[in-house]
Order: sequence, then C-alpha cells, then structure tokens
Amino acid sequence: MRLINHLISFHLGQTCPDSKARAGELKTPHGLVATPVFLPVGSQGTVKTLIPEELKDIGIPMVLANTYHLYLRPGIDIIEKMGGLHKFMAWDRAILTDSGGYQVFSLARLRRVSDNGVMFRSHIDGSQHFITPELIIQFQEALGADIIMVLDECPAHDDSLEKVRRAMDRTHRWAERCQKTQRRNDQALYAIVQGGIFSQLRRQSAEYLTSLGFAGYAIGGLSIGEPKRVTLDITEETVALLPENKPRYLMGVGSPEDIIEGITRGVDIFDSALPTRVARNGAVFTGQGRHNIRNAAFRQAEPPVDPDCDCYTCRTFSAAYLHHLFSCNELLAYRLATIHNLNFIHNLMSKARTAILNGTFSSFKDSFLTSYKPTDEQIRLNQKQKRVKSSRSSMGVD
Amino acid sequence: MRLINHLISFHLGQTCPDSKARAGELKTPHGLVATPVFLPVGSQGTVKTLIPEELKDIGIPMVLANTYHLYLRPGIDIIEKMGGLHKFMAWDRAILTDSGGYQVFSLARLRRVSDNGVMFRSHIDGSQHFITPELIIQFQEALGADIIMVLDECPAHDDSLEKVRRAMDRTHRWAERCQKTQRRNDQALYAIVQGGIFSQLRRQSAEYLTSLGFAGYAIGGLSIGEPKRVTLDITEETVALLPENKPRYLMGVGSPEDIIEGITRGVDIFDSALPTRVARNGAVFTGQGRHNIRNAAFRQAEPPVDPDCDCYTCRTFSAAYLHHLFSCNELLAYRLATIHNLNFIHNLMSKARTAILNGTFSSFKDSFLTSYKPTDEQIRLNQKQKRVKSSRSSMGVD
Repeated sequence: MRLINHLISFHLGQTCPDSKARAGELKTPHGLVATPVFLPVGSQGTVKTLIPEELKDIGIPMVLANTYHLYLRPGIDIIEKMGGLHKFMAWDRAILTDSGGYQVFSLARLRRVSDNGVMFRSHIDGSQHFITPELIIQFQEALGADIIMVLDECPAHDDSLEKVRRAMDRTHRWAERCQKTQRRNDQALYAIVQGGIFSQLRRQSAEYLTSLGFAGYAIGGLSIGEPKRVTLDITEETVALLPENKPRYLMGVGSPEDIIEGITRGVDIFDSALPTRVARNGAVFTGQGRHNIRNAAFRQAEPPVDPDCDCYTCRTFSAAYLHHLFSCNELLAYRLATIHNLNFIHNLMSKARTAILNGTFSSFKDSFLTSYKPTDEQIRLNQKQKRVKSSRSSMGVD
Repeated sequence: MRLINHLISFHLGQTCPDSKARAGELKTPHGLVATPVFLPVGSQGTVKTLIPEELKDIGIPMVLANTYHLYLRPGIDIIEKMGGLHKFMAWDRAILTDSGGYQVFSLARLRRVSDNGVMFRSHIDGSQHFITPELIIQFQEALGADIIMVLDECPAHDDSLEKVRRAMDRTHRWAERCQKTQRRNDQALYAIVQGGIFSQLRRQSAEYLTSLGFAGYAIGGLSIGEPKRVTLDITEETVALLPENKPRYLMGVGSPEDIIEGITRGVDIFDSALPTRVARNGAVFTGQGRHNIRNAAFRQAEPPVDPDCDCYTCRTFSAAYLHHLFSCNELLAYRLATIHNLNFIHNLMSKARTAILNGTFSSFKDSFLTSYKPTDEQIRLNQKQKRVKSSRSSMGVD
C-alpha cells in the first residue's frame, strides 16, 4: 500500500548557487521543521540529561528516538498504552524514529539474518528476539513518530563488496515490505540507501529505492569508521542520484565540520549522538573548535565557556564553574555541557540556512571552516573505530 | 570581636500551643527565609543535578554548601576570585556554609587533632592539609554565605563519654576562637552544640555556647547512626536549653517524619542529603511514604509518581516514564526524582508552617504521621551506619 502523506510534506526553498546546499521546510503533524536540520539523539526516549523545555529553549524542532532501544525498554506496548511516544516523553514537536537496523547490527549479540528478518539477542539481558520489516513498521506506527525508517541491514565499513551487495539487496527487499506494511498516513516513511563505500552499489541502491517512491531518502552505512574523505565522496555521489524534491537524511553525522560539508553536498537532515556524547566527556564546541573544559586552563576562567554563545550555560556560569563540576563528576556538568553543544549545533544550522537563503553560503562555510579547528582526523578515526567495535561486541547507547 | 548582625536577624512569629513547634523568619542579605525551613544540600556548590531556577521554581529560599568540599575543590581562592559563592553557583538566594567539621572527621583520612586545629589528608587525592578555627572562618568569609558555622569536632555515635567530652571541650574552645575571628557583619555565625548522646554533656555544651552569644545554635553530632528515639530525645533536651529568640538548626536531619518530629521539638532549620540522595536511588516521597520507582508496579503506571503532587515531574511525566528512565540508568531520572523529593519536602515545610500559624499543627502532624509510612527503623539504621562507616573509611559526598 503506497500512501500519499498529506500531513507530512517537504517544501524545497532556496538552493545555493555555488554548491548543492539547500534550504527547505518539512511540514509535520508536530510543527514545521526548517532544513537543514540537526536532530539530537534521544535513543531511549530522552535526550540525555535534558527536559523537553530545554530543547525548546534552544529551538530544537525535532529529535530522534530509536525503535530498537524502545522495543527492548520499556517495550513498544507500554509506550502505546501511554498514548504514544510524544506523550510518553512529553515532547510535542516532531520525532523521527530510526528503525534500529543499525543497532541490531552493531549492539545486539548473535545476530542471524535471513530474508525473512533478523534474530538477535538483546545487548541488555541476552534475551532472544526476532524482528521483521513488517514488525518494525508496526512498532513505529505504534510509537507514532512523524518520520519513520525502513529496516535495513548495515554491513561493517570494511566488509567486502560481495558482502555489502548482499546486505544491500536484502535492504531493498525489506524496504519494499516496509512500504507495503505502512498503514498510517500521518507518518513519512524514509528509505535507507546502502552500498557501503562502493560507488556502483550506491548507484544501484539509490536507483532501486527511488523507483519505489519514498517520502524521503536516508544515506545509511556511513560515518561508521571509514575515512572522512570517503564519507563525503559517497555522500556527494549518492545525493546526486536522489530526487530533488525529497528530503535527504545523512544518518549518524556528526561533527560541526562534517555537518557543514554535508549541507554543502545537499543533505537536509542530520543526526548524531556526537554533540551530546562529547559534552558528557567535557568537550565543548566553540567557533575555534572543541575545547576540553577539564583542561587546567579553565580552572580560573571567569568568562563563560564560549563568550560568543547565548545558551543558558554561557549566560549563567563561568567556565571555571563548569570546570569545577567536571572535576567533581557532578551530574549537573553533563547537563550544562549538553545544553551548550546542542545550542552551538542548532545555531550553526540556523546560520547555514540563513546564508543559503541570502546566497552567502559559500563565504559562510569558508569563514566557519577557517576558524573551526576540527579534531585531528587520525584521532577521530581511531576513536570512532574503537567505539563502533566495542559497541558491536557488547553494548552502548547513543 | 563580637558582632551584632544588622543585616541578618531572626524574628520569631507564632508558637504552637500543644508543642514546641514555631514559625519564624530569617532576614538575610539574600532574601527572607520562612522557618521552619529545609536546606537542600549542595556540598560542592551544586544541588546535585539541578540548576538554580529549578530550586527557585520549587520555592527553596536557602541551600547548604560545604567549606571542606569547596576548600578541596575548586579551592576557596578560586571562588573568591569568581566573586564569591553566590555568583559562582549563580544562586542569589540565601546560603548556609557548613564549616566542614563533620566532613573532616568523617571523610578525610588520617586525621590528627590538636587544640590548635586538625591535620588531615584529602579524601580525594590524599594531599595533606591543616585547618584551624580561624582559617575556617576566613574561608567562610571569603565564600560569603549568609549563615556560617563554627569548626567543631564530631565524635562517632558510639564513642565513650570521655571521648565525647574531650571533643566537646575542644569544640567550645574552637567556637570561641571562631567568634573572635569573625570580621564581616553581614554573615550570621552559628555555634554547634555537641555532647553526643549524653544529656549532661549536651547541657554543658548548650550552656557554655549560649553564654558566648551566637546568632544561632546548631545541634550537631546527631543522626549519625544512633537510634531515632535517641536523636529525638537529645534534640528535645538540647532545644530546651537554647534561647527562645535564636534560630535552632538540627544538622543532618532528614527524612520527612524526622523533620516533623524536629519541628515538634522546636527546631527551625534542617538540612540533609537524604531527599536528594534517595531520589537518585529511585526512592520518591509520597503522602503514604517512600515508593521505589524501580518497582515493577510502576512499569505501566500512567498517573504521575504522586497524583497529589504539583512538581514539574508529576505535572509532566507518568510514573511509567520515570520507571523507564531509572531502568535505563538515564541521567534525567536522577534529576526528575530530585525535583519531586525537594518539592515534597518544601511543601511539607510550608504546610507545617501554615499549620503552626493557624494553631493546627498538632492535628496536621497527627494526620501526616498516620498516613506516612516511614522506612523500617532497623533497615534505616543499618543503612545509615553502613554509610557513615564507609564514608569514614573512604570518601563520599552528600
């Protein structure tokens, strides 16, 4: 059953004359979402440490939650009984639920994949579960997010072409079954383009999925340990194969500099746990790059973490206070740093959008990338691979 | 130098006709504080998980911070440089700083006490420090709280009469030196009555300290592992020996039922980490007693944690959501439960005060204690003794 979503649509506004960057607007049953947009990650129905009002104060229009996590805890039935995910987490703006495909393949234990679906053991208690594309859509209809995702099979970043092709083919068959399962017409179902780092597979995947006709297209299987250059090249190639009038969603990206590069290549939607996760480690974003607030340099720093920032944390506290909270492992530390980083990313998106609308995106981008010193590529890659590897072998959320 | 504090005073209002309960008002440079009052504990310059605005929303007029903790981290000099404790933690209502006597004797390692002062090793890094009554007052003048405390020596709850007497005598000599050291006239200095569980010592201590004339009197060395009956009896005896027109502060108490009993015996000020600490363990206060939100009974509970409660948590979320956050060890759980428990205690204080003013305190107390099922005394005592013991041997905050 193919649905036309009257309640949820994408309107493409301005495109940058010098790049693929574009400004648009998603209409959802829970408000308008200006794009490009970054979705904070709230896998378990909570953007870690924050209440909905804090996200709204920052201006966040949409958050991401995760079907895999919510299925395991508290259970889809519980959330349905509580009136759906919006009500459960007291968030009346838009929500996107990821299908959990990535989590099944990276967190769960003992996966056994067949065409029918995937059998896995929970990363929490080892209990055994079997999910299918049909179930994943039924779960997401019960949760009631505004944007829902197909179930996909995610190969590792260093898998062979043959292995990646098989995962892609299965992802295509599953996407079709997801599409046929959808019943609600107030949720937009997005497909996920796979194909790893292989251009010919990405082309096949984009062509196949666009031929089915989805409300939006995600680019999956990137930013999972491959070099940044590859992420950007594959993104660029894939976006070129997607329809102009549909939103493009680059999953799991990311850092401020990666988001800017993604926008440049025509991506509309981003999500990543990075800004909130690094915040809890004491890394705070500034126009000059990430600073580690635990650094002794901040011990006596009277100005806020970022004097240019208008977030609650910077309006209220000195960097010295935040440094003190991190030194003492005080829970408030994680919260204040999270507010700051999400505010930074949200402002970055707003500024990028304004620049696109004003036709000044290229100079905005140059100026941002000139002053923002990204985390060293090799360090970044090692951290990422370590994280993906450890989550593949055990557990981990966000 | 004995100071008359023009800027900080206590006005005794109504006294209950059937008990010692009394309603009053503290005037401080940072606002009026209606008594009886409960001070949330923010040892390290933060009431764990909360921002100042959340405390204000609840109606909290004064918080407690700890000189020992702030001396070790971030250091008194840093806070002074940042403009004092109020500015550092962005709290413009009243603050009471404890001297840290209790912490030196319960947290620090290798204490060596002499009449001059106490040498100890930090519970954080083992570094060696020497503090004196004079230093403790200088530290508290640099921090700038509205109410400051003398340095006292705290014996264990099961120490011999001889040992407790020696500690008391030293506490008296130190109190005198603290009084002589005080220079600021916008801070109220409170003495601490010691004497353990020995009535004759409590009498000596109260008489000696009141003869020196302090702005207020704390009852120290209770609620540290002795049976509840003893705590209440010693409190009652000691309060009877204190001047009517000065505030009385029962340190480290406590639970809702203990606070009500303390009010009954004429106590004006309470502080305890209990409501915030048990919140982080999932114990939430209700009119019927503590509930453990981790209990499976809450898994599908659509109503809030306490349907009678008007706090942010209960206004916004189901008990099922809070149960879910605790199941997942989500940081937001600790925050939401902390808001609820502090709101419960603050409301309890307000209701008690209103009842005193209306002459209905006895029936209010009876009705509260009839429906509130306290935690089992033996369990409570075991927990307390274990906690005091473990903090005496290693570390621990709040």
